[in-house]
Amino acid sequence: MKKIEIEAIGEVRADDAKGYYALQVAEPYREGLLGLEEFGRVQVLWWAHGMDDGRMRSALSCELPYAKGTRAGVFACRAEYRPNPVDLTSCGVIEVRRKEGLVVLDYIDAVDGTPIIDIKPYIPVCDRARAIKVPAWFRSWPEWIEDAGAFFAQVDAPRTN
Amino acid sequence: MKKIEIEAIGEVRADDAKGYYALQVAEPYREGLLGLEEFGRVQVLWWAHGMDDGRMRSALSCELPYAKGTRAGVFACRAEYRPNPVDLTSCGVIEVRRKEGLVVLDYIDAVDGTPIIDIKPYIPVCDRARAIKVPAWFRSWPEWIEDAGAFFAQVDAPRTN
Repeated sequence: MKKIEIEAIGEVRADDAKGYYALQVAEPYREGLLGLEEFGRVQVLWWAHGMDDGRMRSALSCELPYAKGTRAGVFACRAEYRPNPVDLTSCGVIEVRRKEGLVVLDYIDAVDGTPIIDIKPYIPVCDRARAIKVPAWFRSWPEWIEDAGAFFAQVDAPRTN
Repeated sequence: MKKIEIEAIGEVRADDAKGYYALQVAEPYREGLLGLEEFGRVQVLWWAHGMDDGRMRSALSCELPYAKGTRAGVFACRAEYRPNPVDLTSCGVIEVRRKEGLVVLDYIDAVDGTPIIDIKPYIPVCDRARAIKVPAWFRSWPEWIEDAGAFFAQVDAPRTN
């Protein structure tokens, strides 16, 4: 299969104690942020660099942490260990400071220093599905991103696995 | 910035004349599809390999095809030319044939032979935003993925740029 080379465009800044989350875009790429402040939400693609050794990348299925005894393939869950650990998080945009290359977010489930691969605007016609079909173990979960924080604080479950 | 190496896990199959769209997952990765048939929708990450030469990857802003005279950064639009041309499409799942490595889709805006980087289930609490904030030029666009087909057929606009 085709091999692809990617260079990170920046790094995640995350400080859970302060509740501070941001994307720090490297200097050469900052023009790419033009106009992003007009969007309320972004799709962030990031590299799960703690999960990118050979062992983690060869995992193809796992027992689901939120449905004990149920196995699912890595393409049927959001586990960070997968053949290409490119993770996707939809984040609310608080502020864009283009000259500093900074996109301040409401939250991101990536650790400080995580390499950023891409940033895209969240566009309803591309990203927002009316119909929902999920397995039984998801049916008690919220139907909207905005309800994620309160839900996960309560159940103490992993956020995206 | 960190360099990352990725190997495609399969290829897109697309035949516009027949209205046939699928993901063909390579043999070593097929176990990863276990359980995917329980989801109605997937997030597909794919490599825009017609857009991955140095010139396309160095583009940082463009004039928007749907808002003439307005420039936007590549991180504020869904153009395929961008520093790392990893594209994201949310697709409806019609059928999963795991042993053949085939995921039949309702549609994907990628050409036949496009390398697939990753497949993730579309999970409402991760992917589905209640609140919408978009620039003025998007306000006449549909608010749901399911309305995309009819809209783009009418306006003859590029689907995701």
